[in-house]
Order: sequence, then C-alpha cells, then structure tokens
Amino acid sequence: MIGIDLGGTKLSAALFSPEGDVLMRTTAPLGKRSGPEVGALIVETARSLFEEAESAAIDSIGVAVPGIYHSGRGTVWAPNIAGWNDYPLLAELSDAFGHRARVEVASDRAAYILGEEWLGAARGCRNAIFIAVGTGIGAGLLVDGRVVQGEGDVAGAIGWLALQRPCRDVYESCGCFEYHASGPGLVRVAREMLESAEYSSVLRSRDPETLTAEDVFAALDKGDELASAVIDDAIALWGMAAANMVSLLDPEIIVFGGGVFGPAARFLDRIHDEARRWAQPISMHQVRFAVSELGGDAG
Amino acid sequence: MIGIDLGGTKLSAALFSPEGDVLMRTTAPLGKRSGPEVGALIVETARSLFEEAESAAIDSIGVAVPGIYHSGRGTVWAPNIAGWNDYPLLAELSDAFGHRARVEVASDRAAYILGEEWLGAARGCRNAIFIAVGTGIGAGLLVDGRVVQGEGDVAGAIGWLALQRPCRDVYESCGCFEYHASGPGLVRVAREMLESAEYSSVLRSRDPETLTAEDVFAALDKGDELASAVIDDAIALWGMAAANMVSLLDPEIIVFGGGVFGPAARFLDRIHDEARRWAQPISMHQVRFAVSELGGDAG
Repeated sequence: MIGIDLGGTKLSAALFSPEGDVLMRTTAPLGKRSGPEVGALIVETARSLFEEAESAAIDSIGVAVPGIYHSGRGTVWAPNIAGWNDYPLLAELSDAFGHRARVEVASDRAAYILGEEWLGAARGCRNAIFIAVGTGIGAGLLVDGRVVQGEGDVAGAIGWLALQRPCRDVYESCGCFEYHASGPGLVRVAREMLESAEYSSVLRSRDPETLTAEDVFAALDKGDELASAVIDDAIALWGMAAANMVSLLDPEIIVFGGGVFGPAARFLDRIHDEARRWAQPISMHQVRFAVSELGGDAG
Repeated sequence: MIGIDLGGTKLSAALFSPEGDVLMRTTAPLGKRSGPEVGALIVETARSLFEEAESAAIDSIGVAVPGIYHSGRGTVWAPNIAGWNDYPLLAELSDAFGHRARVEVASDRAAYILGEEWLGAARGCRNAIFIAVGTGIGAGLLVDGRVVQGEGDVAGAIGWLALQRPCRDVYESCGCFEYHASGPGLVRVAREMLESAEYSSVLRSRDPETLTAEDVFAALDKGDELASAVIDDAIALWGMAAANMVSLLDPEIIVFGGGVFGPAARFLDRIHDEARRWAQPISMHQVRFAVSELGGDAG
C-alpha cells in the first residue's frame, strides 16, 4: 500500500509491504502551493511511487489530511492549506488511481490511531485512543474496532476539553486544554508564570516573545524552577484529559504522540499517576498508557 | 416486546406494541430479595406478561440492569443487589424464554440511550448521548448507531469526569463530577456552603444531615440565595461535562435525564450556554440539547 501524510507544510509518502515494512519513502515541501496544486502534488507523488514500485503489488492508497475529512462528500477542510475549504480530494484520487487501487482519505487523527492499531503501540486493540499533543491537541478514537467520526466528522477535538474553572476568554480560539497543554500552551503558561515573581528561572533573561516549548524543556533539563512548574501543570492536565477519556470510553490503551511526545515521553508514569487520581477505577486498572512507537510515521 | 427495568429497589416491566405503545405495565418491589430470588422475580414477571399478553406476539425481552452487563459472559454486576457480583442473568432468561423470544440484557445506561433512540428525544439519531443525573451520574453513548460498551463494559462512567482542580480526596469514591453535581452532590455542595457565612439561606435552620436535593430545589423556588449558588455551580459543571462530550464525540444530541432532570429540566438553556463557552464550536453549533421525554420509562 501507499501511505501519504499531508501536513501543513510538507507531504510525506511511503510505500509499505503488506506486513507494514517501509519499502520506499519520499518527502516534498508544499512550498507556496495552494488549492488544486496541492492535490496535483499528492497525485504526482503517488504516481511516482506506483512507477518505482514496479513488481510490488499496490492495492490501496491512504491519505491522512491535516483537518476534517467529510466522509459523506469525500471532501477535505484543511485550515493550513489555502483553498482547501471543501476540497474534493477523494474524487481526484479515485479518478487517478481508482481503477487499480482502493483509495482512502482520513483525518490525521483517524490515521494516527489506525496506524497505531496496525503497526504501533495499539496493535490488535479494538478500543484505543491516540492523544496527539503538538501545535494543537486532538485525539483519534477507536471504539469497538471502528474510528469515531462524529456527526460532523469532527470527533476527537479534545483541545476543547474543559478541565479547570473559571472559563477564560482566551480559551475561545483553541479550547481550555489546548490553551494550557499544547506545545504553544507550554509557552503561554511559561509567559504567564514569568509575569509573576513566584519562580526563579533562567528563562527570565529571554525575550518572552521568542520563547519556544523546546526552550522550556531545555531549561527543565537544567533543573529550572519555573520550567518545572510549567511541566507539572501540563502533566496534571494531560492526566486529567486521559482520565476523562478512560472514564468515558473504557479503552484498552491510551497512546500519547505528536511533537511534544517527544520530550514529554519520559513523564508517562507521572501522567498515569495523575490520571489514576481522577478516573473510574475499574477502567483505570485495566487500561495501558503508552507513547507512540511510530512518531512521525503514524499517519 | 417486553421491557424490564430492574432498579436497586424495584422492578418495572411493560409490554410494548411493535410501535412502542405501552399495552400493559407492572411494578414490583424487590423487598429483601437477593441473588437468585431477584432472577426468579424477573422470570416470573416476564412470564405473567407473556400469559396476559395472549394474542399479542412477543418476539423479544429486554432487561435493563443497574450496574455493569458483561456482554461476553452474559453476567451482571449490580452493586445495589446483594449476590449480584457476576449473576448469570442472560442464561437464566434464555433458559426460560429463549425458545420463544429474543432475550437481551443491557446496562441501564445503554438501555436509556437505546430507549431515547427508539421512542424519545433522540429518535432516529446515530450519534447521541444520554446523561443520567440522579443518585449517581452516568452516560449512555450511541456512536454511529451502536452503543459504546468499552473494553470492560464500563464505558460512560462520566461521574468520574475531572472538571476542576485540585483533585480532592473525597472524589475517590465517586468521582469529581458526581461528587458535586449528582442529586446527593447538590446536597454536599449545599452543606459545604452552609459551613461558610457567605450566603443567606432558609436552609440554615435545617439539620444539614437530613437535607435532600428536593429541599435545595424547594428553597430555590423561594428565591434562596444559597440554593441559587448551589444550582449555579451544578449548571456550570453539567455544562462543562456536556461540552466535553460534544468536543470528544461530536454527537447530534445530548439528552439529560435521571431523577434530577426532573426539577433541573428548566435549566437546559443555561446548561447549553455554559457548554457553548467551552466546547468545540463546529460541534457545539450543530448539537441539540434536550431533556428526556421518557422519564422513568426510558429503560
């Protein structure tokens, strides 16, 4: 099969054996492409993999898109790709390859959990949740072996989880959980803490405007007091969010991935401890917590 | 069909036409029955409905149980019925009626959402959530037309939702959401508020130990300041919990039921307003909030 992961800035594609081994891999920057140009890049990339594959039988093409896939219409809404408000990707791919391969499109969240179920930490699971923490926060939900899409194909928008009161105006654009605990969220919390004198920090010598999540993790590694408070806060929220999904959906496994896991992978045990304080005990007892084994390859 | 709703203290049964009209109805207290005596009461009740039905064709029996139904083993865990730790109800009913009717057992949460989907507020919906607020808090989840059971058959344990920090020791036995916003939760919050001098209240003349949720609602109707603060707090939490399910599962409808809805039904608009402050906006825009149309008949 051919797997294509469309991001906001680049396209990654790979040719897989039926066993899931990567036979070939390619990456292309989107550059200034928009609208149909991005569609054309996907078709062109898939076509070149078809040609290079030669003898390898390719029976399916799967594309993960950074946004919402409207399964009923076969169209994609991708906020970071200009002109992709309702882009007819399924029709375009089916026209090009439908005669020789099965074509599937899915949101990146759905692709992540399906990737983990196929080859990663959730192998063989029928009830599994992928929590992606990066620039944003989203979840892929597998319930009874099927991906949860929701009525408007936007299920898994866990960046909007309400985890602490009061509701603040700043949550309006991205949600409470994402505001505090995404990659940019760590920076926002650090900036808020820098405004008070409570914690000492090497970050006080930095311009708060140029601070990154990497800076926070780097300061943490040097024993920084403020960075430690930022991460403690995030661990508490990651634990609460995971607990809420455990209590609600009673899954076998919660897989953490995305750019922040990554450096936050080492806190998995502490996140589990936090979740255990909140979650339904029967479900909490049987669920496993894991970090994505696939990293950027999950899609 | 015959529908049987087993509660912790009584058994309600009804004979339905294929269109869902109630043809006959009966109720029996459990009294001091335990273990197989409760099973025998269910069989006896169903048998008498079979006999009284005479000409009406009965092709199925559905039983809603107050606890966990382990679908793999066909057994029931019901914390409020002595001897029902792993009670083989499906086998008992199949032995008695399997030759002439389809037998189904489900947790009360699952039965509530299926009842609403069949005859109530969620008629025809494929993605719907029933939030039951009474002595406890639980949810029935319908995703893509199927009830979510979870890996250990305990999905929907939303009484354990983590909605405000810090985590308190008192949440350990019932969960954060249920501690504050179930029927007994309203009383707990009222008692905590009575301990401070912040609000005036007619409830100050009462023994806090004998206070009930009904007392809180009765005081509210008289314009009581403390009762009003208790209900404001609960509305905020009901809204947050609903918002979290909207963001996570993107359903068509959220149905509030259970003993507290009931008297809290009039706050549906305020709960919706609270949820809108927190939830993913696309999902929030398309979801409907409703109060159960079936009341005690949902099961």
